[in-house]
Order: sequence, then C-alpha cells, then structure tokens
Amino acid sequence: MNPEELLMIPGPVPLHTRVLRAMARPMINHRSPEFAEIYEECISILKEVFQTRNDVFVLSGSGTAGMEAAVSNVVKGDNVVTIVNGKFGERFKEIVALYGNPIPVEYEWGSPIELNDVEDALEKGASAVTMVHNETSVGMLNPAKEVGALAKKHDALFIMDGISSIGGVDVLVDNWDVDIAIVGSQKCLAAPPGLAAVAVSEKAWGRMKAKSPYYLDLKVYRKYAAKKPAQTPYTPAVPLFLGLHEALRMVKEEGIRERIERHRRCAEAVRKAMDAMNLQLFPRLNEVSAYSNTVSAIVMPDGVDDKQLRGGMKKRGVLIAGGQAHLKDKIFRIGHMGNVSAKEILTTLEALESTLSEFGVKAEGGVATAKEALG
Amino acid sequence: MNPEELLMIPGPVPLHTRVLRAMARPMINHRSPEFAEIYEECISILKEVFQTRNDVFVLSGSGTAGMEAAVSNVVKGDNVVTIVNGKFGERFKEIVALYGNPIPVEYEWGSPIELNDVEDALEKGASAVTMVHNETSVGMLNPAKEVGALAKKHDALFIMDGISSIGGVDVLVDNWDVDIAIVGSQKCLAAPPGLAAVAVSEKAWGRMKAKSPYYLDLKVYRKYAAKKPAQTPYTPAVPLFLGLHEALRMVKEEGIRERIERHRRCAEAVRKAMDAMNLQLFPRLNEVSAYSNTVSAIVMPDGVDDKQLRGGMKKRGVLIAGGQAHLKDKIFRIGHMGNVSAKEILTTLEALESTLSEFGVKAEGGVATAKEALG
Repeated sequence: MNPEELLMIPGPVPLHTRVLRAMARPMINHRSPEFAEIYEECISILKEVFQTRNDVFVLSGSGTAGMEAAVSNVVKGDNVVTIVNGKFGERFKEIVALYGNPIPVEYEWGSPIELNDVEDALEKGASAVTMVHNETSVGMLNPAKEVGALAKKHDALFIMDGISSIGGVDVLVDNWDVDIAIVGSQKCLAAPPGLAAVAVSEKAWGRMKAKSPYYLDLKVYRKYAAKKPAQTPYTPAVPLFLGLHEALRMVKEEGIRERIERHRRCAEAVRKAMDAMNLQLFPRLNEVSAYSNTVSAIVMPDGVDDKQLRGGMKKRGVLIAGGQAHLKDKIFRIGHMGNVSAKEILTTLEALESTLSEFGVKAEGGVATAKEALG
Repeated sequence: MNPEELLMIPGPVPLHTRVLRAMARPMINHRSPEFAEIYEECISILKEVFQTRNDVFVLSGSGTAGMEAAVSNVVKGDNVVTIVNGKFGERFKEIVALYGNPIPVEYEWGSPIELNDVEDALEKGASAVTMVHNETSVGMLNPAKEVGALAKKHDALFIMDGISSIGGVDVLVDNWDVDIAIVGSQKCLAAPPGLAAVAVSEKAWGRMKAKSPYYLDLKVYRKYAAKKPAQTPYTPAVPLFLGLHEALRMVKEEGIRERIERHRRCAEAVRKAMDAMNLQLFPRLNEVSAYSNTVSAIVMPDGVDDKQLRGGMKKRGVLIAGGQAHLKDKIFRIGHMGNVSAKEILTTLEALESTLSEFGVKAEGGVATAKEALG
C-alpha cells in the first residue's frame, strides 16, 4: 500500500483526513441516540444533495445493492424499459431480468440515447424505466430530465442510477420525477465505499411489491427509520456511516452549487487538455447527452496500450482506470470526482504527458491548457 | 458520542486501536494487487477460524446479508427445516419463507432444541436445515455438531448462522459438516460491523440454484475471488476490509485456541458471578444445549426494569443490551465477545452490582466471585 498514490479512478476516491479520522472513532452502539443523530443528519444532507423531499435511506452495501433494492422492490414480473449504453446500464438490465421482463433500449457503449427509442419502448407498456445517469464506463451523462418526463407521461416509474453523478452534477430528483434514485458513497460525495443511499417517491411507495430480497426490503428500512431513535433494520456498517457523516458535512460546508461548479470546472479543464493534446474523448453525443463531469473516457492513442499507459501513470504516482469488458485497451478513464481540485488535475495531466512522451506519443500542451482553464 | 463508554452489548464490540487505525489508512483501489493481498490474507485466516478447507468469501453487508446469501443460493421452492428458539432463528425462517417452504421446528425463545424433533422434521423430506449456532437473543449455544450429523444423514444441506459464535467458540465447519456457515465481522472477530463471511462446501456448490439476488450470488463471488488479482464482484467496503484484516491478524497473533479459551473463561466468570448474585441465567438447557460463551442472558430481577437497569449501567459508563421483542423487560444481556478480558468483565459486574443496589435489589459478591474465577 502506497499512500502517496493519487487515486484518479472513478471511485473509490481519496478521502479527506477528516473523513478518515471520523472512521477511526471508537465504536458506538447502532441502536443508540448517538447513532440515530448521525444517521438522521446524513439523511437530511442527502435530501439536499438529491434535491428531494422523498424518503432517503442508507443501505450497508455497494451501489449495486442500491440498484437491486430499487428494482426488486417495485418489479415483479413487470415489463421494464432498460436503457443501456454502457456497463452499468447492462447491470441494470441483468438485475431487471431477475425480477421482471426487460424491454431493452440498447446502444453501443458510449453511444447516445435517442428519446424516440425510449418512447417507442414505453408505448409497448412498461411499469418502469431504468437508466444510468452518469455512465462511469464511458464518461457520459444520459438525459435524466427528458427520460423522467417520458416515464411520467406513460405512468411508469423512473429508476435512476445516480451512483456517480449525485453530489457532483446537478440532479433534481423531485423536479425530474425520479421515483427511485441511488447514489454510491465512494464517488462524488467523497465518502468511504460500502454504502448506497436510495431516495423513494410517493409514487414508488404506492407500487411496492409484497416481496423483495430480505436485506433490501425498503419497506423495512422505512419502518426502522421512523423509530425513535432512528435505526437501520440490520447492524449498519457504523464506521462507514461515521465517514459518510463527516463527508456530507464537508459537502454542506462547501455548498452543493459550489461543489457542482467545481466538478464542472475540473472536467472542462480535462476536456480542453485532451483537445490540446490531440486526444479524443470517447463518447459520441447528441442533443440530449453530454460528457460526464465526474469521469472522462478517452480513446487510447496509437503507440501505447492499456498496460503501458496505466503502468507509466502508476510509476508517476497516479492511478487511472482502463476500459471495462470489450473497451479494455480501447479507452482509458480519468476520474475527477469527490474532493478533486486543480492540483490533482494538473498532477494527472503532467503524468499523462510524461507517460505518453515515454512511449513516443506526441501529446503536449495539456497541462498548460488546463492551467489556463482552471484560472 | 462518548468514547469512554464500555460496549458490552452482543456486537458491535469495541475495536482495538490497531483496527481503528487500519480503517483510517488512505483509500486504495479495490482492483489492485494491494487490495487482493489484503483480501486473500483475510480469507486465509478466516479459513483457520472456520476450521475449514471450503471456499470462504467476504460480503460487504451485515450478517443478515450473509444469512440471505446462504439461503437464497441453494433454496428455490425447497422444503427447509428451520430451527427456531430465538430471534435470529425466526429471521432465518423468514428468509427461508421468501425462497422456499419452511418446516418449522420451533420452541419458546431460550428453550433447548430436541434432536428428535429435528429428525422428525427431516424425515418429511427437506433439502436443507437452518440453525443459529449461538442465539444472541437468548444467550444460548445450539447443538451444531449433532444437527450437522442429522442433516448429513438425511442428505440435507446444513446452513448455520455462526455470526456470533465463530472466532469465540469452537466451530469445526468441516468436521461438523456445515455446508454454509456465516460469521459477522462485528462479533467475536472484533472487526468493524458491515461485513459477513460465508463458507461454502462442495456439497453446497453442487446444489446451487441458477438464480439468487444479484448482490448475493455466491457463484459470482467465487468467479471474482479466482481472478488474479483476487477481487470482489462489486466495490467492497474497503475501510472495513482493512479493519477486518488487522483484526484477523490479531486473532492469529493470539491463537485461535487461546481466543476460544479466553471467551470461555470470561463467560464462566460472568455465570459464576450471576450465581453469586442470585441472578438467574435465562436459557433452559438440555443434554445438547449450553450457555453461550459470547453473550449471557439474565432474567431481569424483581425491583428493577429494563430502562432503569440499562440507564443505571450507562450512567456508570457501561452499555449492556436488553431483551428483544417479547423478552424486552424480561431479560438483560451482557456481551462478552471480541477483545473482552478480565478488566471489562469486572468493570461490568462492578457497575451491575452498584446499579442493582441503587434500585434496592440485593445482589452482591459478583465481582469477588468473578475475580476468583478469572484468576
């Protein structure tokens, strides 16, 4: 373990010392008023981050547990429109297939969603739509507001994976009619990995199925959250809640708008730098899709492969991510979420220029361009 | 939050400073060789603790997630003998009911299991038996070896919740033919809450169902554990793995036999103290059941109620647990698991004598008796 390495992968992200220290506090009883206070403050700040008045719960499990909680509580043999343009969209479809019938709206990974296709699929009759807001696998932001409106029009639930967007880009859960939204702790919130928060609308409560996995039954989470003191149904991962609590306090101190703007500024600097370096961003866009402000996917340049590139970066103290599944060796990814600032962006670009140069790839001017963009 | 409070509840238990510090290390990539090394060493020590050569996996979720993983991977419409004599036996039955048909073998909470009843139930034809080894809710150790033999005889899988026994009492997973065994991180292992480890036998692998909850699919855990570097399928709760790793190293340093003997000695001291104080242990025993060595349940004496007793203990800096569900106000519970030593036992008994005395309950000599027993 080398604590000097800079984690620029799309989660887990580096944790602030305050968050690390919070986790190292002596253990407390999870059925105590002390824990309830921490849990309730987490929920209260999460509601602000989700921009929602819906119920919010924190599950002790990864983002995938949150995705499965979302689907399994409201789908039982139903038709569900599953939008796929990357790895996590695929995962949503696989989860839906366990509980109902996916009506797939599928694209090549990194290709934009066409709203007409979504509408056509909804017209076949579906009780829900699943979509990944920020497709971490391809560095792409999918059109949540528009898909939310289509779902509402067809009286379907909108289930949105906001795992790597919420806290880093603007997400208006209520305004966009997101019925179930999920965030992962280890992404834009800069909290430790291992927790997923789920926001549930009144419409979703009205369509809960009797049975879901025991561990993921949102009705039970609601029952325990209403207890005095507030509780989770099963022993929560207490140190992670302590870490999340401190991380959310930091979100609040920074301000949510400021945090979103910081993510935008850092992402824009990376994109401008790629342009200056003649490196090509991977996703294709249309009028409703956008580059992600929390992770950038870049086409692997000729003359270097995944192992060389990531090895060279690691040698320089910076960890970046490769492509997943069939995109391995085709793209690389830079995470810029959580506590990321100009310093980390410039360090990363510096290492990237130097690594590419080592392998004879001509790619310069990234640092200078980003520096200017970051002001 | 008052770090001075001594947690004597049946988990989460107090964490050693080494474990707290381990969690506060800077974040690492969960797909790195560094993480794989930590994960693999955890698995290796866990196998020694489980006394097994079976596969072991660590899930990012509570003990309940481990129980559901155990049941949901091997039960689909099957008949399952569900042994219940406490709260967690009930939970197992509820989980079984989601995936198959429970054949209940039920007793009043705290009453011993009769092996004849288990055999009768197995003769009705069942593919599995579920049992809680250490019933935390009533301070009782159920007969794992004997039930394992019966399950084997009837060619049923033996699914055993060892959440609060493994690491604190002798559990011979292979020798007792336990097909799926579960431990919780926050109990005898003295690791942070939020992880469950599951051991799976060859016989259980041979009876895996095609579908289980996505997040709990043990086949996928096996696939990822075999990767080089070893991985978990979804982003693991990294800080908890770091904490578990350090806690398991401490288990190894102490020695598993020594650890079990320490738990036995502390538990015996508590029981002798209760006897001296004229307090009555709650569980009823028969020839195959025993008092738990990791948690003691004691009948609430006349003249004091749950709120007064636990409030008085808390005022003296010691947190103990009450009875759950219909046992609230009927019993109280002292957890003595994890890093517990003579010091904590004596502090707890001292506070108990003093609290009872405050409410006019005559109960003395506990500290002196325990002191003698602890040598």
